[in-house]
Amino acid sequence: MARPTQPLISVDAVVTAALELIDESGDFSLPKVARKIGVSQSSIYNHVSGREEILELIRGRITEGSPVPPAGTPWDEVLRLEIREYRESFARHPRTAPLLVMQTVRHAKVIAFYERLSTALEEAGFAGTDVASALALIDSFAIGAALDLAAPGNVWEVEPGGGSALGRAVENASGLADRAGTAFAFGLEILIEGLRRRAAGL
Amino acid sequence: MARPTQPLISVDAVVTAALELIDESGDFSLPKVARKIGVSQSSIYNHVSGREEILELIRGRITEGSPVPPAGTPWDEVLRLEIREYRESFARHPRTAPLLVMQTVRHAKVIAFYERLSTALEEAGFAGTDVASALALIDSFAIGAALDLAAPGNVWEVEPGGGSALGRAVENASGLADRAGTAFAFGLEILIEGLRRRAAGL
Repeated sequence: MARPTQPLISVDAVVTAALELIDESGDFSLPKVARKIGVSQSSIYNHVSGREEILELIRGRITEGSPVPPAGTPWDEVLRLEIREYRESFARHPRTAPLLVMQTVRHAKVIAFYERLSTALEEAGFAGTDVASALALIDSFAIGAALDLAAPGNVWEVEPGGGSALGRAVENASGLADRAGTAFAFGLEILIEGLRRRAAGL
Repeated sequence: MARPTQPLISVDAVVTAALELIDESGDFSLPKVARKIGVSQSSIYNHVSGREEILELIRGRITEGSPVPPAGTPWDEVLRLEIREYRESFARHPRTAPLLVMQTVRHAKVIAFYERLSTALEEAGFAGTDVASALALIDSFAIGAALDLAAPGNVWEVEPGGGSALGRAVENASGLADRAGTAFAFGLEILIEGLRRRAAGL
């Protein structure tokens, strides 16, 4: 048998294995990552410092390929584009969400993403503690919408129609080709219009 | 040794064990639940039909004790109260979020919660597909805010101040006694005001 031309282990291989474990089971551990790659646990420490660094690399990985809005894009359009990308990144890996929100953001690419959001919010007119609050609102909405995208077609088991308000809601939504997408577009515009009015002091 | 006066296994014991496993590891399995209680896996099936029923019971469990707004409460106040409760329920068990959103809601108490939200949204003036979209917006915000509540104090590793928009945001927010709570209150009012204006066709 020829010797493998590629080493089994690399930072990329560690990140891929950990992300697959999270997608399957909701979490990962270093022994499981090592077993999955087929290497010893100690050899992983030659490539990454530990669990926290792997999670930060996953944070970068899931947003890989996200386009950056060109300079000069108006603030509301920056928010639209970035929030859409954010939702899609997490929708591909919904089970990373609880793990990633519980850890300080350190990945340079993701810090740059929040810098673009902060700059757009300042451009909208926000200042002081409201910028961080608006960032949290955007975070909450995008992560929640990503999880909603992973929801089943029938969100609630309820008699369609059937005289209840929820039944009517389910019946009306049943004709939608893309329930989650329709809801996301609805929510995104409410959010941006709400931020615009708040920043203007209305 | 006296015989135990309580049997080891009950529906409640199964739900408690599964919820503890999710809190610790992000997921549960029936063999792990059985091992945790100290019973055989087959005996669990005498109490619940399987994984899906356990998850539905967890959905009911985490909202246990949530007060119901009294009849006659105005729609916007119903939304405020219910969204606060929703966030707090999930904040105590953030790792249940991805599992619960991926399963159709069947628990009667939780269906009743969505019925109260739907009724409030109709009272606000929403009709047609917008009711389901507004429910999804509320869901996304509340689940996202619950995850944000589990976030660390230092959300981003960035030089406070330091000339960047994100640095300024972090510096300004650092004086807040309750960053996540401040952000939640800010977002909740933007959301409710946005829904009010949308329902009124503004």
